[in-house]
Amino acid sequence: MGLAEQILQGDMRAAARLMRDIDDGFKSAVEELKTLYPHTGKAYIIGITGPPGAGKSTLVDQITAVYRGGGKKVGIVAVDPTSPFTGGAILGDRIRMNRHAEDDGVFIRSLATRGYLGGVSRSTGDVVNVMDAMGMDTVIIETVGVGQDEVDIVRMAHTTVVVMVPGLGDDIQAIKAGILEIGDVFAVNKADREDADRTVRELAVMLEMNSGKNGGWRPKVLKTEASRNRGIEELVAEMEEHRRYLYRSGAIKHLLEEKNARLFMEILKERLFTEVFGHIHVNGRFREIVEGMMTRQKDPYSAVDEIMAERFGAPGNDPPFS
Amino acid sequence: MGLAEQILQGDMRAAARLMRDIDDGFKSAVEELKTLYPHTGKAYIIGITGPPGAGKSTLVDQITAVYRGGGKKVGIVAVDPTSPFTGGAILGDRIRMNRHAEDDGVFIRSLATRGYLGGVSRSTGDVVNVMDAMGMDTVIIETVGVGQDEVDIVRMAHTTVVVMVPGLGDDIQAIKAGILEIGDVFAVNKADREDADRTVRELAVMLEMNSGKNGGWRPKVLKTEASRNRGIEELVAEMEEHRRYLYRSGAIKHLLEEKNARLFMEILKERLFTEVFGHIHVNGRFREIVEGMMTRQKDPYSAVDEIMAERFGAPGNDPPFS
Repeated sequence: MGLAEQILQGDMRAAARLMRDIDDGFKSAVEELKTLYPHTGKAYIIGITGPPGAGKSTLVDQITAVYRGGGKKVGIVAVDPTSPFTGGAILGDRIRMNRHAEDDGVFIRSLATRGYLGGVSRSTGDVVNVMDAMGMDTVIIETVGVGQDEVDIVRMAHTTVVVMVPGLGDDIQAIKAGILEIGDVFAVNKADREDADRTVRELAVMLEMNSGKNGGWRPKVLKTEASRNRGIEELVAEMEEHRRYLYRSGAIKHLLEEKNARLFMEILKERLFTEVFGHIHVNGRFREIVEGMMTRQKDPYSAVDEIMAERFGAPGNDPPFS
Repeated sequence: MGLAEQILQGDMRAAARLMRDIDDGFKSAVEELKTLYPHTGKAYIIGITGPPGAGKSTLVDQITAVYRGGGKKVGIVAVDPTSPFTGGAILGDRIRMNRHAEDDGVFIRSLATRGYLGGVSRSTGDVVNVMDAMGMDTVIIETVGVGQDEVDIVRMAHTTVVVMVPGLGDDIQAIKAGILEIGDVFAVNKADREDADRTVRELAVMLEMNSGKNGGWRPKVLKTEASRNRGIEELVAEMEEHRRYLYRSGAIKHLLEEKNARLFMEILKERLFTEVFGHIHVNGRFREIVEGMMTRQKDPYSAVDEIMAERFGAPGNDPPFS
């Protein structure tokens, strides 16, 4: 029995192994993903993002507890594109600290690295698909940081929760503006801090100015204290309200089209580059180009032109004798 | 006279126009970049990164003043991959607030968006090359945030300054670990805050544990108060010390190889995807694939396999009649 079949029967160890194979770029992993794909599309996918220090991990922990209390299986993908070097260890610590780590109804996976050959959004998509196919009812994608990678990642979610924290200064205001449009629900965490109400009001005003850009959905700003388990039930209720809205309004169709298009483009981009780069790396041409660039004898734009012409034919050239 | 020739004569308006053409993906821009490329490689490139709220913009402002005081021309590229939507406006504000905005010896450009067809690291590389070719002695790349994109971006610099700020909490510690290895110089800004000395000590300890990973260079931790112009001369002196180290030790060769390889790979990746995606987008196949994914009749992995086989031939297949 292949890995995919074992995973479809709920085998967590097989799932963990496939995810390692995905990380390691094994070709066999792609075949397993093909088998799993028809079984995906059932999980409710939640994205949690926000600046460092906002308490996202604790919040994910509490949200997981709510879903577990309702008998749902929960998958958690913790993504940290911030730490290309030592990030793995840090995420490992986070996972060990998660109180659901020993629960059979919870599957946790961290993704910490992004190489040149693999985008972190692509591997996140693959991992979410594995969790979906293995029967996780809810999959939570938690990102560290608020960069473009994180934005790409949370776009894979049905519902995105942006976690803010009171009083992080003016630069945070700028970030708020940037992530305003990706949040379906806003949580001001650490709401016991004195500035909490001001942050809630400011966010509400910014969202009001921004209204209409999220279609018919009006994002709410909720207060939470994840470390004391306050406001979590209300947050989950609002997430579920957004989920119902997606189906009721028909917005789900456009969202799924976007998600699928995105996943396909990520896979295509990576395969194209791997194919061509692998070739010029092996035959020594890559080295030659870089050496040419060092002395400015060769410019990278012309080098790429040449490779494209060889691979795809010169643009505008008619086929011979046509 | 083409844009490139005008830029080589120091025409700032021509440079601004080429940068817009690069953003808009005009093919003509690539031709201009080819002409400019042999004239690049002279500028000293500085990367400034660190978490939001660390006061990077003010620091860049002060560093610029030091270089201007020494008669150097300064290019500034402010990169904000955080804000795919409204970021442009925010960066625009930042630029207007820069006191060097009216100085002819300073050229400022913001990059705020990253589409599917263009990586922000690639466009940053192009813009740095234009500034280099037009005769900027120093080019400062300032990033907002500390994600993987930012790490990729600062790898284009000769010297990277990581800006930290006292007392941002535990999650920041995690980020510190992630960016420890990219910093050549560390600045603890807002050093008038009470936690400043503790942050300096913690960073110094982490760097000590980490020593050896940056080759022979030992990064120092300096205190700055950008808003009061304190510690800036010392910071610039340390950056220049790193620059001299690069050449003295020969480390510059490996660094330039990395930089050039990276730029070439970015250009290649983008061109490959643009070529193939453009084709399947126009002929309707992309739409067909996404629709197939929606109903789970089609999986994206097999769809990519098919495209690769058509474009590059099936792996392992012999040519007919050979």
